[in-house]
Amino acid sequence: MNEELQDELGQAHLASAKDFVEYCNETHAATVADELKDLDTIQVRHLLLALDPRLRAEIFGHLGEEMQVELAESFRSKDLAQTLQFMSPDERADFYQALPQDLQEIILPLLARAQREDLLRLHSYEDGTAGAVMTSDYATLSPQLTAREAIEQLRQEAPDRETIYNSYVIDEERKLIGVVGLRSLIVSPSFKKVADIMETEVISALVDESQEDVAKKIAKFDLLAIPVLDQEGHLLGIVTVDDVLDVAQEEATEDFHLMGSVQDVGMSLREASAWLLVQKRLPWLLVLVLMNVFSGAGIAYFEDVIQATVALVFFLPLLIDSGGNAGSQSATLMVRALATGDVTRSDWLSLLGREVLIALAIGLMMALAVSLLGFYRGGPDVALVVSSAMILVVLTGSLIGMSLPFLLSKFDFDPATASAPLVTSIADIAGVLIYFSIATAWLH
Amino acid sequence: MNEELQDELGQAHLASAKDFVEYCNETHAATVADELKDLDTIQVRHLLLALDPRLRAEIFGHLGEEMQVELAESFRSKDLAQTLQFMSPDERADFYQALPQDLQEIILPLLARAQREDLLRLHSYEDGTAGAVMTSDYATLSPQLTAREAIEQLRQEAPDRETIYNSYVIDEERKLIGVVGLRSLIVSPSFKKVADIMETEVISALVDESQEDVAKKIAKFDLLAIPVLDQEGHLLGIVTVDDVLDVAQEEATEDFHLMGSVQDVGMSLREASAWLLVQKRLPWLLVLVLMNVFSGAGIAYFEDVIQATVALVFFLPLLIDSGGNAGSQSATLMVRALATGDVTRSDWLSLLGREVLIALAIGLMMALAVSLLGFYRGGPDVALVVSSAMILVVLTGSLIGMSLPFLLSKFDFDPATASAPLVTSIADIAGVLIYFSIATAWLH
Repeated sequence: MNEELQDELGQAHLASAKDFVEYCNETHAATVADELKDLDTIQVRHLLLALDPRLRAEIFGHLGEEMQVELAESFRSKDLAQTLQFMSPDERADFYQALPQDLQEIILPLLARAQREDLLRLHSYEDGTAGAVMTSDYATLSPQLTAREAIEQLRQEAPDRETIYNSYVIDEERKLIGVVGLRSLIVSPSFKKVADIMETEVISALVDESQEDVAKKIAKFDLLAIPVLDQEGHLLGIVTVDDVLDVAQEEATEDFHLMGSVQDVGMSLREASAWLLVQKRLPWLLVLVLMNVFSGAGIAYFEDVIQATVALVFFLPLLIDSGGNAGSQSATLMVRALATGDVTRSDWLSLLGREVLIALAIGLMMALAVSLLGFYRGGPDVALVVSSAMILVVLTGSLIGMSLPFLLSKFDFDPATASAPLVTSIADIAGVLIYFSIATAWLH
Repeated sequence: MNEELQDELGQAHLASAKDFVEYCNETHAATVADELKDLDTIQVRHLLLALDPRLRAEIFGHLGEEMQVELAESFRSKDLAQTLQFMSPDERADFYQALPQDLQEIILPLLARAQREDLLRLHSYEDGTAGAVMTSDYATLSPQLTAREAIEQLRQEAPDRETIYNSYVIDEERKLIGVVGLRSLIVSPSFKKVADIMETEVISALVDESQEDVAKKIAKFDLLAIPVLDQEGHLLGIVTVDDVLDVAQEEATEDFHLMGSVQDVGMSLREASAWLLVQKRLPWLLVLVLMNVFSGAGIAYFEDVIQATVALVFFLPLLIDSGGNAGSQSATLMVRALATGDVTRSDWLSLLGREVLIALAIGLMMALAVSLLGFYRGGPDVALVVSSAMILVVLTGSLIGMSLPFLLSKFDFDPATASAPLVTSIADIAGVLIYFSIATAWLH
């Protein structure tokens, strides 16, 4: 089959609702959702309504937030309620969160009471906490059951649970007392009690713990899911590893954006509007311009020196950029190491010594490189000024870049706010002052 | 219990080998490994050797690569062989990879033949591919088994398998014909054949596929593990979700470092030596200095203009930095969107239009801000020069920053090589030329 033909056939299933239903029955919901991305809302609505509610809900859960909301606005309330009913609790809560308030108010009365209460409960946790990413779709067991009885119970509950590979053992007050893997239940003699099979040293998360910490725990202990508890130890929900993969992705994206001095966009870049991006980018640019005014003022202050030896201006971008670049290298390394937990806040002092060594080594080699250039363009005096300024500028830039993330973290800001451009701007100011001070002292 | 007392008790289990064994029996291996991090090799060796080989292997697998190698060098070969025997195949292969060649040669003959062959096979795949992260520790089933027989087989194999929650159904030639979840086996009637229960539309990875793509597939389809096949469809191994979490982390770190113009450090920042970091940082800094020479040359070319109106120099850092900052914002957004798959290479043209709009809007607002400053410092002429330069500089910087990642990706470089400092340097050169050209045209 040639590719063009395949392409054509590949689209055929989107042409008629009947073919689409067939196609969906044998294709993963994530793949279907991907293909729907490029169609317009009316088409997608038409195709989705041809599916049975369970399958529709599954595909709906994989669509982007933008499209979910647009579809919700175009669905009749009966269809919307049906779709919601079959979504997984955590996806339903995320979707609910994304809806405008008037639609939220329309939706709530359409749900069954238990679902409504569950939705409001999940919705009530602060964004970015374990509570906000957890699902209420998990299997619980009583400690008195035998392995055989437990397996039998899971068989009956299975189709409705997100994961049955870990079951949570709770007492009468819903306090978590243990966790048991399906694997252990199967391997154990069938008459053995759950209480004797379960693991009692359970790794768990608190409901108000940050989603980043939850992700780190799951990664560190190689878990499939982690139970989420309140302060008293009551089981409130679980966070599964597949949700954590998304969390890790989001957190890294947010840090990336911050490092590039963009406020977190928080949605698909492809779908973001031009105006949204202007709003996310402009504030930092204006702050940075303001900082540059200080560099400018620094230069203006040394106007006489510059006018006397205009050759100095030739080296200005080179010197101040080198400080900025070395600084943004150090900042990048530290921001990432702090985010992954490789380095903690208390490590600053012990890393400072190494940073000084590194910066001096780098500064020396760069000074060597530019001294030749300085000699060629301005003679031995300029060479000396430029190369000694280089060492100091690289050292200062590196120390600023390395320390700023720690400082921000100390005051409870995200260390990634030490964006490369911010560090560069600060290092620039330092660079101007260092360079022209040395020049003034030496040349005049 | 107050914290100090807890701290003291927290250390007690590391004091004697006997207490340590007890402690390890009730603590997760990852936690134990964490605590060993700060001890020296001799102490760790002493403690580990007190454990039975299975537990020792588990904790050993969680240690950092540096310490693993140091320990391997201090172990007697009998102990080393015992430890290796109980490690999971993928951890064993990673560890083997990290060893110096002479130790590799000592270790190989100590392993049982099957383990040795497995190790060499896993070791043979290129770093960064599915083959290099997969494990050979999975359960296979024959399609003729009944659900009951299949569960019985898994019960017997379970303790030796990394995961039994997905079993892979293979024919006589080891070709993958389906996958079946333990959940489905349990829910199905016990006499039903595996062939009739299994999922035949299996999402799989090719052995030479990049680990990034494997991670994306697991995340997209919410899998616990993905089977890895050769070109003919033979099952070679599986990649599990917990390994993918680590891969996603590593890839993000590498991109972070590249964006900060640091070559990938590829190990813990805390453990990296000063000299290693100098080597990872210096090359890009030198390249960037070279680029700055062009900015400097640009300035030198306009020396007359500068000498005539020294006030212009005041605005130099402000203007060229704004171009660089806007450019690194665009680059950051694109690099991350390309890495997560939010945007693909073919999207460049369609995003270009939006970028022009965004850059013009941002440029206009920044021009407004600086025109006041220009007026105040140099009068209406300077205000006009500075603000019109600002619009052009921001536009140029944004377009360079936005396009460079696509260009790099087209020539099979990592888009993240479009580091913030590189974009800034290129935008600087453009900025100098634009600013002084406008100044020359208008003022003289």
